[in-house]
Amino acid sequence: MSKEPTTADGLQNRFRTHYCGRLNRKSEGELVRIAGWVHRIRDHGGLIFIDLRDHTGICQLVVLPENESQFKLAETLHSESVISAEGKVVLRSDETVNPRLASGAIEVVVSSIQIESNADPLPFPVADDMPTSEELRLKYRFLDLRREKLHENIIFRSKLTAAVRKYLTDLDFIEIQTPILTSSSPEGARDFLVPSRLHPGKFYALPQAPQQFKQLLMVAGFPRYFQIAPCFRDEDARADRSPGEFYQIDIEMSFIEQDDLFVILEGMFKHLVENMSHKRITQFPFPRISYKDVMNRYGSDKPDLRIPLEIQDVTELFVNSGFKVFASNTAEGSCVKAMVLKGMGNESRLFYDKAEKRARELGSAGLAYIQFKEEGPKGPVVKFLSEAEMNALKERLGIVTGDVVFFGAGKWEKTCKIMGGMRNYFADLFPLDKDELSFCWIVDFPMFEYNEEDKKIDFSHNPFSMPQGEMEALESKFPLDILAYQYDIVCNGIELSSGAIRNHRPDIMYKAFEIAGYSKEEVDARFGHMIEAFKHGAPPHGGIAPGLDRLVMILRDEQNIREVIAFPMNQSAQDLMMAAPSEVTAQQLKELCIRIELPEEEK
Amino acid sequence: MSKEPTTADGLQNRFRTHYCGRLNRKSEGELVRIAGWVHRIRDHGGLIFIDLRDHTGICQLVVLPENESQFKLAETLHSESVISAEGKVVLRSDETVNPRLASGAIEVVVSSIQIESNADPLPFPVADDMPTSEELRLKYRFLDLRREKLHENIIFRSKLTAAVRKYLTDLDFIEIQTPILTSSSPEGARDFLVPSRLHPGKFYALPQAPQQFKQLLMVAGFPRYFQIAPCFRDEDARADRSPGEFYQIDIEMSFIEQDDLFVILEGMFKHLVENMSHKRITQFPFPRISYKDVMNRYGSDKPDLRIPLEIQDVTELFVNSGFKVFASNTAEGSCVKAMVLKGMGNESRLFYDKAEKRARELGSAGLAYIQFKEEGPKGPVVKFLSEAEMNALKERLGIVTGDVVFFGAGKWEKTCKIMGGMRNYFADLFPLDKDELSFCWIVDFPMFEYNEEDKKIDFSHNPFSMPQGEMEALESKFPLDILAYQYDIVCNGIELSSGAIRNHRPDIMYKAFEIAGYSKEEVDARFGHMIEAFKHGAPPHGGIAPGLDRLVMILRDEQNIREVIAFPMNQSAQDLMMAAPSEVTAQQLKELCIRIELPEEEK
Repeated sequence: MSKEPTTADGLQNRFRTHYCGRLNRKSEGELVRIAGWVHRIRDHGGLIFIDLRDHTGICQLVVLPENESQFKLAETLHSESVISAEGKVVLRSDETVNPRLASGAIEVVVSSIQIESNADPLPFPVADDMPTSEELRLKYRFLDLRREKLHENIIFRSKLTAAVRKYLTDLDFIEIQTPILTSSSPEGARDFLVPSRLHPGKFYALPQAPQQFKQLLMVAGFPRYFQIAPCFRDEDARADRSPGEFYQIDIEMSFIEQDDLFVILEGMFKHLVENMSHKRITQFPFPRISYKDVMNRYGSDKPDLRIPLEIQDVTELFVNSGFKVFASNTAEGSCVKAMVLKGMGNESRLFYDKAEKRARELGSAGLAYIQFKEEGPKGPVVKFLSEAEMNALKERLGIVTGDVVFFGAGKWEKTCKIMGGMRNYFADLFPLDKDELSFCWIVDFPMFEYNEEDKKIDFSHNPFSMPQGEMEALESKFPLDILAYQYDIVCNGIELSSGAIRNHRPDIMYKAFEIAGYSKEEVDARFGHMIEAFKHGAPPHGGIAPGLDRLVMILRDEQNIREVIAFPMNQSAQDLMMAAPSEVTAQQLKELCIRIELPEEEK
Repeated sequence: MSKEPTTADGLQNRFRTHYCGRLNRKSEGELVRIAGWVHRIRDHGGLIFIDLRDHTGICQLVVLPENESQFKLAETLHSESVISAEGKVVLRSDETVNPRLASGAIEVVVSSIQIESNADPLPFPVADDMPTSEELRLKYRFLDLRREKLHENIIFRSKLTAAVRKYLTDLDFIEIQTPILTSSSPEGARDFLVPSRLHPGKFYALPQAPQQFKQLLMVAGFPRYFQIAPCFRDEDARADRSPGEFYQIDIEMSFIEQDDLFVILEGMFKHLVENMSHKRITQFPFPRISYKDVMNRYGSDKPDLRIPLEIQDVTELFVNSGFKVFASNTAEGSCVKAMVLKGMGNESRLFYDKAEKRARELGSAGLAYIQFKEEGPKGPVVKFLSEAEMNALKERLGIVTGDVVFFGAGKWEKTCKIMGGMRNYFADLFPLDKDELSFCWIVDFPMFEYNEEDKKIDFSHNPFSMPQGEMEALESKFPLDILAYQYDIVCNGIELSSGAIRNHRPDIMYKAFEIAGYSKEEVDARFGHMIEAFKHGAPPHGGIAPGLDRLVMILRDEQNIREVIAFPMNQSAQDLMMAAPSEVTAQQLKELCIRIELPEEEK
């Protein structure tokens, strides 16, 4: 009654015996049945040619006028109708071979056609990559998904996800599904809420991330957890983030140190890049750069290491300078930074003016620079610097004639960021290789920072990261000097994820919060259920959660997240095809004990 | 700076060099560091023994009194504290070898202990499988998950999921994530709603199943889709269904016939059962039984084929019977059914009385039966039957002395169901093997049924299934005779999933709805977006969606779905650990433009 288990190559049934893209010279003479979509149809001198498309590719059908009934049928076909056709494979004549098609050496002379589904006129063509409004593409997503590039992106995403899973399960990670109907978590963004029917007046929240659950899994004794986890944030859309839902490769491990996690993650990215793309990783293992270093050298904690520019510190050269702008910034907490552009010292005035304009946009009061020209140094600050200072600069920065050096001076963090902004601004001058993936880890983030506004010490990033030096550091060090086991992974200037070794010790957690001005009672009130878990035997643990969508974008060179998701919402968080969100019935609202209360202007 | 990529065997770091469960005789003499939870701790004659547990198993530590500082430290340890211990592996003396532990031949003589995390007193023990209230277990799920059986269930679930994925991806299925924030779909259950902040007064719905999206993926030209798909139904809890969310192995394929899908699914279940359990599949390929047959033979469309009882039709024996109860049920639409219990003809009166009581509970007016005793037939109906009828019965049913036959008579469907209920009732008489998995397909469901209440023809199951014979059948056959390409897969009396070859033709869909009394306009209003997609070239397609949770339950012999989910809600749809659902702030409600309106008694 049943057939033998099939191979991945597919089934043979009344719709097809072969796939379009797999027919070739070797198929000559075979009687075949193939099925798919009418990609293109042309009437050439009394013959009808149909490019038939399935998921393996395209094959040309020929309908001869002698086959009267089928010829008539073929004349009625539209693009994107679905047919199943039977016929004989013949070799094409040499001059009609299509080298761009895998099946380009043959065609199928049709004996019969079965129309499975007629297509109405299309809102946009599938066969041609004609620019089409995003609104139309989303409304007819089922058509848009047939177009080659998007179709391939979705297949790629699926294969990448499978490869991530295989890599991690091979390393004894287990995937555990965590609740989607849960409670609000302190991730910082806005929650999506779900009214509870059984508990009127109460709400579930969709998880912004499974952060608490994955930590609880560590406490529960699962040593290596991952999940391709759906996450939800009620935020406004960005090019690299979908409004509503997104997926992250959520990872957590127990009994590890920071470097243990780095090894696993580096291995994963290497595996994915080497097996799923033609891109190259610049440096492996990925460089580890401390927060302080990355700010000093690249002026950003998300540096694009491909840009061949580095910021240098020249503060000490100007401690006793007569140039007050520089000298006044040589005190603790301030700095003078320089960045050399080799061979760019003879550009037109416009070049430097535009650079200065950009520096002002970045928050600088101006842009000091020196062009080292044949005829001698030139630029707005030259006159303020002594010859000794000029020589020291040239020596320190390895400047030769033809170069230009740009300066920044002021408070350390702000100056670094402005110089980092200028570094990115100058990136256009260099041919960055998009097939080069320059990964790095940013490590040693400060645990605390000084909040100028509230005049108090705050957590810099995640209050739940373990401070380096643990309790001893909290008790003995100046808070702003304490570093955290907190890390970012960055690729080509894009932050793929933050992560941390977590603070699993209630005593250290209370102390860290105390430094940031929170009482034990406040901590218990807000995070009591996690602390309760940590009080019942918690292992040291840490994790990370790279964004899946963003990783696909990088590997597929896509700028818009909607190009790597099968059914994305538009920028206004609507699904135009399914009409979501939409109105619901009064009965539904009544069951949930809620009432809609529109603001005046929307009533 | 970084270590070599690690093997799955784990990392070596300051917490551990070895795993507890992997130490054995061969480790003798090694200096090791192991980490985990204090499973048990005992003071025996001045020595402290600690059973240390990690995810690989348990290893015994011995702390000697000579090691004074560590001995003192060990004395302070509680069950479930997390420690890391260093020491030397020594062989145990023969009489202290523990054959139940993989590491039972050795112990580790501790040189130093590092406490990573102290455990407070426990609400229930982890090491002992003491009965614990479900409420406490859910509130302290992080502890409950450490207990052996639940821990293993969660690991099993993860491995099963990975095996499903591997099986399907090896067959060129691709996993595609479909939206979780979407619109209401006509699945029949109650939706969870999510108020939209950006579109006040409108709501997303969480998907009850990705049914429409998977069909759209077929229209989009992805021939083999699957997804371990989260699904959401706002229903009251049942033992085999979690309130809120559950997962299904969602599958859809294009250009297939019904049998093509059966082959894939049978292969998948065979693969899982053979590789993931010690259970046996009774019959492979799985038997296909038509709806009519399964009702006639087992009185249920979810038959447990392991029960060695079959219902037989004896209607024609009584066409001219003098026994009016039987004779009156020989007309079209009614029937007389019989079920023989071999060797049960000499039970006490109580046995038959209890059976009759059960039959009445099932909706029968009584229960006719004949005991075939040495001294001749006995029972309430004997006196109404002729000798010829008795002989015909014995011959037809292969009855011998010592057997008993039970009867049912009346309308076909009701009589079948009562007999099916009796078949299940008698199941207790037989030793059913829980390690036998008796799968079957139920096929050929009727497309339409007569709705006695509304006096009209209705769809029997899914209006979107393809009728067998397609348009021709709809136009020429009596509606109640039309069968659908609709199927169920059943295992040991449990329905794992329904599925169908879908109706992909708008013309056939309009016609099917017309028969059920719906106008084209009504169809367009309710299902317009799907019809719109089908009008742009839809391939023939079909699918199925077996429940993942239920499959895990079957393979792990669990009766309660909460035993196979890491973080389930309780039966009142609450997460007791995370306190979900919970109250939200007035600000959150204001942003969503909704107001809570509690019914009077809850205010």
